[in-house]
Amino acid sequence: MGSIRDPSTMPLAAYLWRRIRQLGVQSVMGVPGDMNLELLDYIDSVDGLSWVGNANELNAAYAADGYSRVKGCPGVLVTTMGVGELSAINGVAGAYTENVKLIHIVGTTGTRAQKARAMIHHCLGVDPDHRIYAKVSESVRVAHCWLDDSRTAPGEVDRVIRECYIHSRPVYIFVPMDFVHVPVPAALLNNPINLVPKTDSEACISATNAVIEKLEKYSAPAIIVDALVHRFGATGIMNTLLEQLQILTFTTPMGKSIVCEDKPYFYGVYNGQVSLPGVADAIEEESDLVIDVGFVHSDSNTGGHSRNMPSTEQCIRVAADYVQVGHARYEGVYLVEFLTRLSSSLTTSPASHLTTHKRRTPTLPRPPVPSDADSRHITQSWIWKRIGSMARPGDIIIGESGTAQFGFSDATFAAGVRYITQIYFGSIGYSVPAGFGAAVAQGEMQNEGGRTILVVGDGSLQLTVQEIGTMIKMGLRNVIIMVINNSGYTIERAIHGPEQGYNDIAPWNHQLLLSAFGLNSSEVSSRVVDTKEGFEEVVLSPEYTALNSIQLLEVMMDRMDVPWRLQAQIDLINERNARMKMAESGR
Amino acid sequence: MGSIRDPSTMPLAAYLWRRIRQLGVQSVMGVPGDMNLELLDYIDSVDGLSWVGNANELNAAYAADGYSRVKGCPGVLVTTMGVGELSAINGVAGAYTENVKLIHIVGTTGTRAQKARAMIHHCLGVDPDHRIYAKVSESVRVAHCWLDDSRTAPGEVDRVIRECYIHSRPVYIFVPMDFVHVPVPAALLNNPINLVPKTDSEACISATNAVIEKLEKYSAPAIIVDALVHRFGATGIMNTLLEQLQILTFTTPMGKSIVCEDKPYFYGVYNGQVSLPGVADAIEEESDLVIDVGFVHSDSNTGGHSRNMPSTEQCIRVAADYVQVGHARYEGVYLVEFLTRLSSSLTTSPASHLTTHKRRTPTLPRPPVPSDADSRHITQSWIWKRIGSMARPGDIIIGESGTAQFGFSDATFAAGVRYITQIYFGSIGYSVPAGFGAAVAQGEMQNEGGRTILVVGDGSLQLTVQEIGTMIKMGLRNVIIMVINNSGYTIERAIHGPEQGYNDIAPWNHQLLLSAFGLNSSEVSSRVVDTKEGFEEVVLSPEYTALNSIQLLEVMMDRMDVPWRLQAQIDLINERNARMKMAESGR
Repeated sequence: MGSIRDPSTMPLAAYLWRRIRQLGVQSVMGVPGDMNLELLDYIDSVDGLSWVGNANELNAAYAADGYSRVKGCPGVLVTTMGVGELSAINGVAGAYTENVKLIHIVGTTGTRAQKARAMIHHCLGVDPDHRIYAKVSESVRVAHCWLDDSRTAPGEVDRVIRECYIHSRPVYIFVPMDFVHVPVPAALLNNPINLVPKTDSEACISATNAVIEKLEKYSAPAIIVDALVHRFGATGIMNTLLEQLQILTFTTPMGKSIVCEDKPYFYGVYNGQVSLPGVADAIEEESDLVIDVGFVHSDSNTGGHSRNMPSTEQCIRVAADYVQVGHARYEGVYLVEFLTRLSSSLTTSPASHLTTHKRRTPTLPRPPVPSDADSRHITQSWIWKRIGSMARPGDIIIGESGTAQFGFSDATFAAGVRYITQIYFGSIGYSVPAGFGAAVAQGEMQNEGGRTILVVGDGSLQLTVQEIGTMIKMGLRNVIIMVINNSGYTIERAIHGPEQGYNDIAPWNHQLLLSAFGLNSSEVSSRVVDTKEGFEEVVLSPEYTALNSIQLLEVMMDRMDVPWRLQAQIDLINERNARMKMAESGR
Repeated sequence: MGSIRDPSTMPLAAYLWRRIRQLGVQSVMGVPGDMNLELLDYIDSVDGLSWVGNANELNAAYAADGYSRVKGCPGVLVTTMGVGELSAINGVAGAYTENVKLIHIVGTTGTRAQKARAMIHHCLGVDPDHRIYAKVSESVRVAHCWLDDSRTAPGEVDRVIRECYIHSRPVYIFVPMDFVHVPVPAALLNNPINLVPKTDSEACISATNAVIEKLEKYSAPAIIVDALVHRFGATGIMNTLLEQLQILTFTTPMGKSIVCEDKPYFYGVYNGQVSLPGVADAIEEESDLVIDVGFVHSDSNTGGHSRNMPSTEQCIRVAADYVQVGHARYEGVYLVEFLTRLSSSLTTSPASHLTTHKRRTPTLPRPPVPSDADSRHITQSWIWKRIGSMARPGDIIIGESGTAQFGFSDATFAAGVRYITQIYFGSIGYSVPAGFGAAVAQGEMQNEGGRTILVVGDGSLQLTVQEIGTMIKMGLRNVIIMVINNSGYTIERAIHGPEQGYNDIAPWNHQLLLSAFGLNSSEVSSRVVDTKEGFEEVVLSPEYTALNSIQLLEVMMDRMDVPWRLQAQIDLINERNARMKMAESGR
C-alpha cells in the first residue's frame, strides 16, 4: 500500500474480497487479530461489503452459517491462525455436516516466519510447523488453498470458491501476512467464477426418463422434500415441480419450510415412527412409490432411524450429486440440474397424464388432543404451534437444538416463512449466533417488516450469549429472542438424570441481558410470561407485530415438560437398545 | 448399573474417576451431553470429586488449564463427541503449547453405532467415521486412548495419565457409551500410577558435573528462570537451588512469580531488548555464564526474539527432558530430577566455594520516570505495578493477553503470589475461564483469604464472559474481576489500524454483568473508577481487602495508552521488518 501500483493489477486481498462480493456476500463475520488486520483493511474498499466483528470465533462461524442459510451465498468468516481458527472449528464442522456454504479465511504468519519455524505467538511448541492447523481442519472442509504465490493465488481463490458451491460445504483460504498486498492481474475479476457443477447430461436424461417411467407405472406416489434441496439452492425449482406433480408431499424435521405448507398436497413432517398419526402409514403402507429428495438420513431426521420404506424398486432418491431410481444409480447428476430437467420434461410431456390420477387427498387422523391442552401455563404441546402460527411471510424462525427442535415439527408455517435449525450436527449454542447471521441477511434482503424469531433454551443460551451484544452493536431491530426458561437442560433430563446436578445451569437474570449487552435503557424491552394468556398479550402487542427494536421474551416452562416427539424418539431408542441387549445376552 | 456385580470389580467409569481423584483432582470441568451423562453419574460416587459444569466447552478447557496451573495436578474436562470436543480444542491447544497438564475425556457414541457408521447426531456427513474427531485433535495432545476393551482399558487410562505428566501436556480419553459400566478389576487401583519420568541417571550425573565445572570456571554467572519450571512442578526445588547459588537471577514474562521476588539476588524480568534499563546488559554483557532453566523461547517471551546470549560455551540450558552444557547435550535428563541432583550436589560439595565469590550485587539504572507519572487518570505506566503491589501472599493474579500481559512484567509480586498468563499461545478470552479454574483451585487449597484477581480487557472479556455465571453458580467469593475498559482492542490499535472500525467492540454495560449472570442483588458490587485516587479507594476498602463476595471493578483507561513494553516490541519488529525489506529490495 502506498507504493505506486501498476493500474492493471490489484492487491491480492482486494481480489479476494471482490470475488467474495461477486457471490452476493455483503457482511463478513469474524474476529480481528494481528495476523489478519491488514487483510481486513481491504474490506472497506469493496462497495457493499462490510465487516461485522463478532464476540468470538465460534459465534462468527455460526453467524456465517445462519447468514448463508438465508441468503444462499456462502457465509464468510475471518480468523487468526491457531487461536481464532481453532475456536471456530466446531461451527465449521456444523456447516460441513449440514451442507452449508462457508468460506473460512485465516490470516497467518508470514511465509518467512513459517519457513524459519519461528516460535511466534499462536504456534504449537518448539520448532513449530505454522501450517499444522491446516491439517486440523482437514475433516471439516472440502477444499483449501494457501495464498503464498501471486501467480497462482487468484486461480486458487476461484477454485476453492467453486468447490464451496459444488459441495455446498466449507472451504478454507489461508493468507500469509506477507501476501496480503502482492499485486495480481485485475482483469481476472471480469471472468465470473463458474459455480455450477458439471452434470453428466446423458445420465441426467436417463435418470429423468427413469423417474417418469416410475411415475407412469405406479399409481400412489409420494414425495419427501428434505434439507439438501434448500442447501443446493433448489427451493424454487422444487416448489415448481411440486405444483406440476401435485402428489402427496411431506417434509422432514430438517427440510421444514422448504415446501409451501398451505398447499393442498402438503401433508406435514415425516419422521419415521416419530410422526403424527397416519403420516408414516401414508408413506410406508399406502404409497407405492416414494421420492426422497435432498435427503439427510440422520437419526433425528428419521425418527431415530425408524423409517420403513417400500422396496428399493419403489424408491427414488435424489441426492446432491446422483439420482437413484430403483436399483439404478445415475452418477454425476446434480440436484438443481436434475430437478430442472424433470420439471421441463413434465411441461413438454403430458404431465397431467402422469399426475392427475395420482392426486390423492387422504384424510389423516386428527392429531390426539394433548392431555394438558387446557393448561393455563405454557406447555410444550402448545408453544411450538403457537410460535409457528405467529410467524408471517418474510419471518425467519430459528429453533435451537433441544425441545425447540423437536417441537417445531408440529408447527405449521405460512408460505414465505423460513425455518432454520441444526438437527444433524445438533450443537447447542448454535441458534443465537446463527440467528444473528440470519437477521443480518434478512436486513440485507430489504425484507421490510421481516422478523427473526430466535427460540433458545436457557441452557443453550449460555454457550454463545454474547452474540446478543453484536446484534445490539449492529443496531438490529428485527430480532425477537424467546428464551425458553425451563431451569436447565430439559432435553437431557428427559434422556438421563432428570434430577442430576449436571443438568442444572447457572441461574441467570435474563431480564438484564439486553441492558448488560449494551441496549440503550430507553429502548430495552425484556418481558417474562408464564401463561398462554400472557404470551398472547405480548406477541400480539404492537411492539412485537410492528417490531422496531430487539425484544427479549422469557417464557417460563416446566422443567420436565418435553415435546411428545422427543419422548417418542427416546422411548423408541430405549426399546431398541433393550431388545439388542436381550438378543446379545441370549447368544 | 443395578445388576449384581462381582465385588472385586468396579465399573470402568468409576475406575477412571478414582484414578483421577488419586492425582489430587477435586473438580471436573465440562459440559454435559447425551453421550457423557452416564459417565458423569459416577463422579459423585468418588469422595472429594465434584462436577462443575461450565457455560461452554472452550471455557471448560480454559478453566481446566487455570485449575491445573494452580494445583499442579491435571485439569480435567468432559465433553461430548464432536460438538463439545471440537468446541474445546482451542483451549486444549493452548494447554499443549504452554505445557499445561489436561485430561480431556470425551463421551462418544457406542461401539455398535461406530461400527455401523450410523448417522447419529454430532457426526460428519454420510457414512460417518465416528472416530474422525480423534484425528482432529492429534496435534494438540501427547497421548490418547479409546476405552473400548475392558481388558486393556485400565492400563490405557494409566498409560495416558502418565504421558500427561511426563510431557506436561494434554491427553485424550475417549469413552464409548457402552463401555461406561463394564467391570474392571478394582484391585488395580491399589497400585499408584508411576508419574515420574525415567531419567538416565548416568547422563544426569554427567550433566550435573558439567554444570558444576562451568560454575567453577566462570566468575559472573546468571540464571534465567522460565515457565517450564512451574509446569513440571519444579518451583520448590528451583527456589531451594537459587538460595544455594545466590547468583544473579532473572525471570521472563512467562516465568514471572516462580522466583520469590523479594530475594536480594532477584533482578527482574529479562525479555531481550524489551527489558528495563540495565537488565539485558547485566546478562548479555556482564555475565560470563548464563543458565536458562525451563525456557520457552517464543516471541513475546524473548522481546520478539531479541536476546543476544553469550557464546554457546557460556550457556547452560535446562529443558524439560534434556540439559545442554555448552555444546554437550545430555538427553533423558528431566527437569525436576536434574535440579534435585544439582541441589544435593551443591549441598555435599563445597557450594560456598562455587557461589560466594559470584555473589554480584550490581545496581541497575533506575527505570525512567514515565512522562505521565503525574496523571490523575489511570495510566498504563501506573496500573500494573499498582495491581502487583496490592496482591498479598496467597493471591493469584491472572493477566489476559493484551496490555495486561505486557504490563505485568513491570509489577513486583510479594512472595507467595501466583501469576498466570498465556503468552505463547496468546488466545484472547483465556483469562476469564482460567481465572475461574484458578479460583476453584485456590478454594480447594484452603488458602484462607487468598484472592483471585482477574484482569481482563473489555475486548477479551467478550469472548468468554459467560464463565462469570459459573463463578456465581459455584458461589465463589474469592474473585475480583478488573475490567480494563479502553474501548476496544487497544493492543491491536497499537499494532495496526488505530482508528479502524474492526478494532471497536460492542459497547457493553459492564456494571450489569454480575446481576445478569445471577448474582443476588443484595450481594452485587460493581464499581467503575477512572482516577488513581478512585482506584485506591476501592482496592483499599474492606470489601476488597477482606473479600467476601465476587467483585467487578471497571477501570476506565485511554484507548490509545499502551504499556511501554508493548510499544517497544512493536517498534523492534517493525524496524526489523523494514531492514529485511530493504535488504531484499537491494538484492
